[in-house]
Amino acid sequence: MAEYRLHCFAQSGNAYKAALMLELAGADWEPVFVDFFNGATRSAEFLALNPMGEVPVLEHRKLVLSQSGVILDHLARRLGRFGPAGPAERREILRWLLWDNHKLTANIATLRFMTNFMPEERRQPEVIAFLRARAGAALKVLERQLTGRDFILGDAPSIADLSCIGYFYYAEEWEFDAAGHPAISAWMDRIRALPGWKHPYDLMPGHPLKAPGQG
Amino acid sequence: MAEYRLHCFAQSGNAYKAALMLELAGADWEPVFVDFFNGATRSAEFLALNPMGEVPVLEHRKLVLSQSGVILDHLARRLGRFGPAGPAERREILRWLLWDNHKLTANIATLRFMTNFMPEERRQPEVIAFLRARAGAALKVLERQLTGRDFILGDAPSIADLSCIGYFYYAEEWEFDAAGHPAISAWMDRIRALPGWKHPYDLMPGHPLKAPGQG
Repeated sequence: MAEYRLHCFAQSGNAYKAALMLELAGADWEPVFVDFFNGATRSAEFLALNPMGEVPVLEHRKLVLSQSGVILDHLARRLGRFGPAGPAERREILRWLLWDNHKLTANIATLRFMTNFMPEERRQPEVIAFLRARAGAALKVLERQLTGRDFILGDAPSIADLSCIGYFYYAEEWEFDAAGHPAISAWMDRIRALPGWKHPYDLMPGHPLKAPGQG
Repeated sequence: MAEYRLHCFAQSGNAYKAALMLELAGADWEPVFVDFFNGATRSAEFLALNPMGEVPVLEHRKLVLSQSGVILDHLARRLGRFGPAGPAERREILRWLLWDNHKLTANIATLRFMTNFMPEERRQPEVIAFLRARAGAALKVLERQLTGRDFILGDAPSIADLSCIGYFYYAEEWEFDAAGHPAISAWMDRIRALPGWKHPYDLMPGHPLKAPGQG
């Protein structure tokens, strides 16, 4: 059994944050497929693992961790990669992890879910427009931060980047305006160029067009 | 000048998280009023302080901190109150801070804004129903966690509680169903009973029915 076991599925950008970290750091890890689209995160078995009913969940020896930000923080400490250099960077990383959860991922992930995975007859145009406006406001903040910086903290990638990047390689699924956000687009290219980078659909199992085990 | 200066306004539950911590810990602090409803968080002056354009912002000597979770973490370290006892509690606190930002506060704060502060002609019933459903799902998770526990981590209050409680004393403004959430209601009473507790409208300036300086 691998040292790290990540409960995940291909379409989850929150799980991708952890999967990408594990892969970039060269950790000994394996994915454990969670059949989200058939209700697996609402099962009693899964809720025993994570009462919040969400992926990702990371099993590492006797630890069971949930929330992507907690997992990223744990992995940065254990693997010695993408963590803060001191207290000021630690605070700055936490600031972006929290902001990502509150303002960026919260809106983008829900927007993408509604426009991609929800049956058309259940889609609500008002809600979709609302989420798109809120995602747009968050994108402005991120674009401003990345203008003149290679990564969120400056010169080097950190778990703040790995958190915020979660849904960006699914960009066409939520109609990300790449031309309107040149700094974000260049940042996506920089992270894509890191040794070991993989697309979420190549890193986690469950994509309908990829055989299980390949993912 | 006080040691801690908190940029805030009475209606902000996110600012309340920090204000309540400062007050409960008996810190030497003062509020700095941010005129949110007249656009102050979008001013160039405020964006220079916090490019995310949000309260709270805490000034502490030469530090300028934003994101309520970063501020709570900083205050727990400096004031020696409501912080974790060890690594496991540290992870558990971070987990709830992130979850609060992503699933609880994100939905409750927006729901309350839309049903309270937005002009009636701009309110969108579909969006309000969407936010109420998502807030309801988060409330279920919190109710489950607090069933059989006095506080989120167990016996003692922590910054996880001070984060999650942010919008609960404005409960009537977002029609919180107290009867349907007995564990949350008892937890609200327990936090209200902590020495030094104050209602957000008594702790931060800018409530229309309270004179500035009293707030």
